Amino acid sequence: MGRVSSLADLPIRDDLRGLKPYGAPELKVAVALNVNENTHPIPENVARSIIEAVAHELLTVNRYPDREFLALRDSLANYLGHGLTRDNVWAANGSNEVLQQILQAFGGPGRSVLGFPPTYSMHSIIAAGTGTEWLAGERDADYVISPATAVDWVKRTEPDLVFLCAPNNPTGTALSLETIEAVYDATGGIVVVDEAYAEFGVEGEETALSLLPGRERLIVTRTMSKAFAFAGARLGYLAADPAISDALRLVRLPYHLSSLTQAAAVAALAHTPEMLAMVDDIKSQRDRIEVTLRELGYTPYPSASNFILFGNVPDSHRLFEQLLERDIIIRDLGIAHHLRVSAGTRAETTTFLEAMRELTAR
Amino acid sequence: MGRVSSLADLPIRDDLRGLKPYGAPELKVAVALNVNENTHPIPENVARSIIEAVAHELLTVNRYPDREFLALRDSLANYLGHGLTRDNVWAANGSNEVLQQILQAFGGPGRSVLGFPPTYSMHSIIAAGTGTEWLAGERDADYVISPATAVDWVKRTEPDLVFLCAPNNPTGTALSLETIEAVYDATGGIVVVDEAYAEFGVEGEETALSLLPGRERLIVTRTMSKAFAFAGARLGYLAADPAISDALRLVRLPYHLSSLTQAAAVAALAHTPEMLAMVDDIKSQRDRIEVTLRELGYTPYPSASNFILFGNVPDSHRLFEQLLERDIIIRDLGIAHHLRVSAGTRAETTTFLEAMRELTAR
Repeated sequence: MGRVSSLADLPIRDDLRGLKPYGAPELKVAVALNVNENTHPIPENVARSIIEAVAHELLTVNRYPDREFLALRDSLANYLGHGLTRDNVWAANGSNEVLQQILQAFGGPGRSVLGFPPTYSMHSIIAAGTGTEWLAGERDADYVISPATAVDWVKRTEPDLVFLCAPNNPTGTALSLETIEAVYDATGGIVVVDEAYAEFGVEGEETALSLLPGRERLIVTRTMSKAFAFAGARLGYLAADPAISDALRLVRLPYHLSSLTQAAAVAALAHTPEMLAMVDDIKSQRDRIEVTLRELGYTPYPSASNFILFGNVPDSHRLFEQLLERDIIIRDLGIAHHLRVSAGTRAETTTFLEAMRELTAR
Repeated sequence: MGRVSSLADLPIRDDLRGLKPYGAPELKVAVALNVNENTHPIPENVARSIIEAVAHELLTVNRYPDREFLALRDSLANYLGHGLTRDNVWAANGSNEVLQQILQAFGGPGRSVLGFPPTYSMHSIIAAGTGTEWLAGERDADYVISPATAVDWVKRTEPDLVFLCAPNNPTGTALSLETIEAVYDATGGIVVVDEAYAEFGVEGEETALSLLPGRERLIVTRTMSKAFAFAGARLGYLAADPAISDALRLVRLPYHLSSLTQAAAVAALAHTPEMLAMVDDIKSQRDRIEVTLRELGYTPYPSASNFILFGNVPDSHRLFEQLLERDIIIRDLGIAHHLRVSAGTRAETTTFLEAMRELTAR
């Protein structure tokens, strides 16, 4: 049945008219370093465990899944540590859905959320999708957010929620616990710390999880997409006071997490050491990218994540296209003279850096 | 980490304060006929195909899934027939998420949706969750909606969307194509026909799919939860003009469908005849329930679905509890003197009907 209409003919909401859908290009290239995936496939023995778990679930796939995903919440709490239990944990189909549920419960029409661009682009998109006003704060030099700067923005804008990204995407910038504490004390609203890339941070560095006790308005979001190499399975989650989950139960769609998703994630979490074995290698490739790009005259930013933002690119659009011609895709985020690249395997990283050497004539 | 707060202490939206989360009780009972599941497990050979497909996807689960789920849309279009192609099809994690995306794109604050209670309870809940005003129309006798009644409600309320449920849940009532056509002609808004139970209708009866050509504001939603016995996998979908998918791309979260979900659904759809083999048996159990309950003095409503609503229950709460004591759960929807029961396997249905015989002393 062909198209009889265009989007402009439909009674779509006025605030959506003329918008373009989100999306990094989905191109088939040999070296894909554009969406901060973990480029290492999961280990074979873990895949076998997941297959067994999924096969078991298929016996009862005619029934609705566990709406409270208790086994998964137990596994996630056990992974996070910090004295957390299932009551502190909630999950959804990717951290995007977790963030959407948070904004449905605590944001929405007449409410606002403060973020600090450049940051994860979905934060403002999900705000728009839930009718929450997006307030754009500003960062200090080199994309850092000091406690004073953060508090200043909270006091000026009086938001209902604050989104902090730690480490920040797309800049890789770490965020101090002092800044999170200062923001929490300065607001009566919900403070969300998006720790999607937390596992790539400096060894032994504290996460915002350590700040949870006694802070019932603090939410730490995580994902299995990055360190766990599980982007295809879509599993995001959060840790917070149990009352936060009570709020999200009012807005989540019932049975939002499939029984296959629950089983696959539980099986993967049972193999945490193997699943995270590649994190150290990715971090060393990231550090190698930083060193090499600096040698080549670019200005990479210090990164606590699995990617590097680098500046001093004379023509970022042209460099992006030249890499694409070599079957390598990285990310052009629209920041002038900057590009972002994910740390791949050793071989992928070598391919990227050799191309950069060739393309850089200074 | 224990609870330091209650929901009442958090800055939740005012319109959510005091609400209770949606949910049928999740009790472990021997005979569960409360949430209109297909109580037949999927065939073993289909399970094997799904396991193979999932195993293949695990090789690349470190990568994000196909954001456009092209293979799945091809499979769904092929299943639906009616000349539909992938461009006419969209999917999400359950038809609830499909409906939520429709309301995010075409409803929301300042907009309204007309429905006809008693109907699927999630329709009004999703309206509330997206800030869309819920307008409650009324039905004719025996829960039928005539074209004249429907048009009258559309003209009186001037909604931005109309939700029709065909057959209706929880009453099982079929809906005529004439009513759908009349509603479409009476409104300039979006008309959604929720056909979650379409496969249980009368053989050869037309679905709203036949009305799609030339009606760019008409959306037909479906699910694999019921006829396909796939409730645990969470796969809802729709058929419509391609411009509808363009609109939903503006509000859907990127990568909302996991690669495992996509693979499992494609594999199941490749076995459509086996997956639907139980539909005829379920329909015959439904008809047996209708006949027997009428014999016992209850008033079952004609059903085009896999469940029966029946009235003339002197004390519906007591009967529900008496069945539960016998390890049988059905559904009390809060309609006075009425209960709803799903058609189970032959054995489950027999257990239910024998219990009803014992509990009915007239």
